[in-house]
Amino acid sequence: MKYFVAELIGTFILLLLGSGVVANVVLPKTKGTQSGWMVITTAWAFAVFVAVVVAGPYSGAHINPAVSVGLAIAGEFSWDLVPIYVLAQVIGAGLGAFVAWIVYRDHYKETTDPDLLFAPFGTAPAIKNYFSNFISEVVGTFVLIFVILYSTPASLQDVQQTPIGLGDLGALPVAILVWVIGLALGGTTGYAINPARDLGPRIAHALIPMKGKGSSGWDYSWVPILGPLVGAALAAVLFILLKDILI
Amino acid sequence: MKYFVAELIGTFILLLLGSGVVANVVLPKTKGTQSGWMVITTAWAFAVFVAVVVAGPYSGAHINPAVSVGLAIAGEFSWDLVPIYVLAQVIGAGLGAFVAWIVYRDHYKETTDPDLLFAPFGTAPAIKNYFSNFISEVVGTFVLIFVILYSTPASLQDVQQTPIGLGDLGALPVAILVWVIGLALGGTTGYAINPARDLGPRIAHALIPMKGKGSSGWDYSWVPILGPLVGAALAAVLFILLKDILI
Amino acid sequence: MKYFVAELIGTFILLLLGSGVVANVVLPKTKGTQSGWMVITTAWAFAVFVAVVVAGPYSGAHINPAVSVGLAIAGEFSWDLVPIYVLAQVIGAGLGAFVAWIVYRDHYKETTDPDLLFAPFGTAPAIKNYFSNFISEVVGTFVLIFVILYSTPASLQDVQQTPIGLGDLGALPVAILVWVIGLALGGTTGYAINPARDLGPRIAHALIPMKGKGSSGWDYSWVPILGPLVGAALAAVLFILLKDILI
Amino acid sequence: MKYFVAELIGTFILLLLGSGVVANVVLPKTKGTQSGWMVITTAWAFAVFVAVVVAGPYSGAHINPAVSVGLAIAGEFSWDLVPIYVLAQVIGAGLGAFVAWIVYRDHYKETTDPDLLFAPFGTAPAIKNYFSNFISEVVGTFVLIFVILYSTPASLQDVQQTPIGLGDLGALPVAILVWVIGLALGGTTGYAINPARDLGPRIAHALIPMKGKGSSGWDYSWVPILGPLVGAALAAVLFILLKDILI
Repeated sequence: MKYFVAELIGTFILLLLGSGVVANVVLPKTKGTQSGWMVITTAWAFAVFVAVVVAGPYSGAHINPAVSVGLAIAGEFSWDLVPIYVLAQVIGAGLGAFVAWIVYRDHYKETTDPDLLFAPFGTAPAIKNYFSNFISEVVGTFVLIFVILYSTPASLQDVQQTPIGLGDLGALPVAILVWVIGLALGGTTGYAINPARDLGPRIAHALIPMKGKGSSGWDYSWVPILGPLVGAALAAVLFILLKDILI
Repeated sequence: MKYFVAELIGTFILLLLGSGVVANVVLPKTKGTQSGWMVITTAWAFAVFVAVVVAGPYSGAHINPAVSVGLAIAGEFSWDLVPIYVLAQVIGAGLGAFVAWIVYRDHYKETTDPDLLFAPFGTAPAIKNYFSNFISEVVGTFVLIFVILYSTPASLQDVQQTPIGLGDLGALPVAILVWVIGLALGGTTGYAINPARDLGPRIAHALIPMKGKGSSGWDYSWVPILGPLVGAALAAVLFILLKDILI
Repeated sequence: MKYFVAELIGTFILLLLGSGVVANVVLPKTKGTQSGWMVITTAWAFAVFVAVVVAGPYSGAHINPAVSVGLAIAGEFSWDLVPIYVLAQVIGAGLGAFVAWIVYRDHYKETTDPDLLFAPFGTAPAIKNYFSNFISEVVGTFVLIFVILYSTPASLQDVQQTPIGLGDLGALPVAILVWVIGLALGGTTGYAINPARDLGPRIAHALIPMKGKGSSGWDYSWVPILGPLVGAALAAVLFILLKDILI
Repeated sequence: MKYFVAELIGTFILLLLGSGVVANVVLPKTKGTQSGWMVITTAWAFAVFVAVVVAGPYSGAHINPAVSVGLAIAGEFSWDLVPIYVLAQVIGAGLGAFVAWIVYRDHYKETTDPDLLFAPFGTAPAIKNYFSNFISEVVGTFVLIFVILYSTPASLQDVQQTPIGLGDLGALPVAILVWVIGLALGGTTGYAINPARDLGPRIAHALIPMKGKGSSGWDYSWVPILGPLVGAALAAVLFILLKDILI
């Protein structure tokens, strides 16, 4: 229960802020309208920072199924806890995007472009190409999980009571890591690198009544789910292989 | 007295820098004119950083009535001190905005748009809608206070002599928190999330003689006062409820 | 001698990077041309960071006559050392701007605007008004010195062998402080807030032969010298007065 | 072998992210297209941060032949290890740029400008002038290596088992140092300041088949190799000379 609440709150804050900044940048008449990629990536990085600060002491702060699965494959997180964590993450992400929609509702009403009405919820590729988009999500998530595994002392597992997570690497290093992944590798698919961050808000978009709303992009929705999981698995496998060489 | 002076100085610096950056961005002929949302949110975040560095060791650094009230509701700050803190915050904020006006006076003289003449003082919504704007301020402040309560060990209260405040979370984490709230949730109302930050400068705007000056927006002024206080109260109540589950 | 070398190197690096970023932003055909106020203020902040990292362990890192004088007035730095520090700072600043000119020489050759040829060297006000410009420099430097005095434990003086300086507050806090002063208060005069940062490069500008070179702005040069010193003195006096109340 | 793998992974991540951000900014239809110098320099700084976090505990994190050679000249790194380090760095850099190309392949296909097709791989000067460009690379690398040598306690060498490197200065200070070098001194040549960062991707560019591909700029390629090495040597010599004065 403690883990469920902490993950839910962490992912709620992540999406409240993450969906909020996209709304601020893409919707009309906001104070940050058209303020660009730097604003979006900075806010997502600091949204992760805040989420890790909040959830870290209680659940270790995964706030991302790719983290939970990656750590489980690497043997640093119990598979039994994965379903609880993932469920909390998807629900928290959906709720966060919902509250961000409430905050920006008047600005949603000012636009009729269905793509802009969707952008603050789920990711959509700049150039649609399932294979390339999938690779993008694999590579971005690979970097995220590989660095986390590489930098989190596995020995902690036996010492601390809280599960290992982003909190063990530290909120600021994780934020910088997500920041640079966004700046450098986010230009193609918008860097979901987190199945819950995409699925929860996509469901929210499907449920929320909006004038002029278009597709919730379900045909694409498997890419930001499967890509991150494959990237996390690759990172975990490489980490296990390298452990013998490096340590 | 010590608390009063520290809060006054902290909030003075907060508004000197915060009002200054808005003047720099919105007024004509400045070196930072039209430099955008990133400049504004970064400067406000670091204004908080500096204010916390300065006031932290003496008053705990609240620099915001929503912080004082939120901590009091959560039982981590004495209600007796709230009036002293709030008074110092409002006065400090007004003085800070006044000195920022002196610094940018020649640039104020170059504009005739009453909205731009007001912008460095108080907040004004992008789309006026009392209910939506109120919600925006509630949500933004809720995130601020919830994270602060969540991350500040209540046990400190018994140990240290200085009241608990932003200084206990640390100047950099608080700055990043305010930064991302601005980037992500500030696009609607300009994120007052602090009644003193809005009221003090609004009074200053009403008092300062400016050629072409328009309304000080008193009809809207209750939103950035009541919204933050309600957001802080919600955060404190949720914090109390969650404490039993998480700790 | 150790102090002289450390201050000279620190201020050399400060101006090499600080003059460099202005050249990058204002001169034509550079990779950062017209990249704006955020680039300039970020680079100056980090130039201070690097200078403090380098000079901190040896001279305490003043890299600014206003710091040396402010600390001396507050009784935390020996007046005997002030001339050595200031001399090193002015020479280092001039040399740094000179090397930055060498790096950007081909780009200097591409412009004929005498204002742009001067901009990477000394400061020039957005709207010339000696009195207002002077006030701007006083206020900006007041914030700098006041926060430094306020945050540097005077008791260190008796313990450590190195003089007190920016290094005692820490490179990152000082960088953030300079960053926000630039963002918020730099829009009027370009925030010299440091007599050596302005005088040394101004002398370099006067000496370097450049095609199309205009005035080195000597009529204005007293403002970025006297303004910062007055600001530092005010900060020191207020600090002394407040010490009894706060500590 | 441990050193080789760590340096290869570190430089791989450096270029995956560094080449990625340039592709994101210069190629058409990306989410970060034309987002400017701030995005590029921020991402390169944080790419260094991540690379240092990853390689630091195993090889000390050089990820740059100029660092290996500079430390060797200064007597803080064994010359025997230099070839292993440099080989790993060049291979890692080439592989990183290759994977970044895979991620952005659809966007590469959308452009026909050979300069843009090359930009994410190697550096090219804004104004071509071998002598000036060489000086730019010397000065930029001089600052990098001088600060590293100056700030890394040589005494560590005898204590720790891992070679001295960027990890000893800390990932964040090194990132800030690279950030400001890019912002301030990168406007002329694009700040290679690292022979491997330029050579590896340049080889990758020569090998990868791209429609419309132009020259890999081999005539210029010696500048970002020799310039950084000379800058590193100068920094090491000055460091040795100053050590007696300062310490």
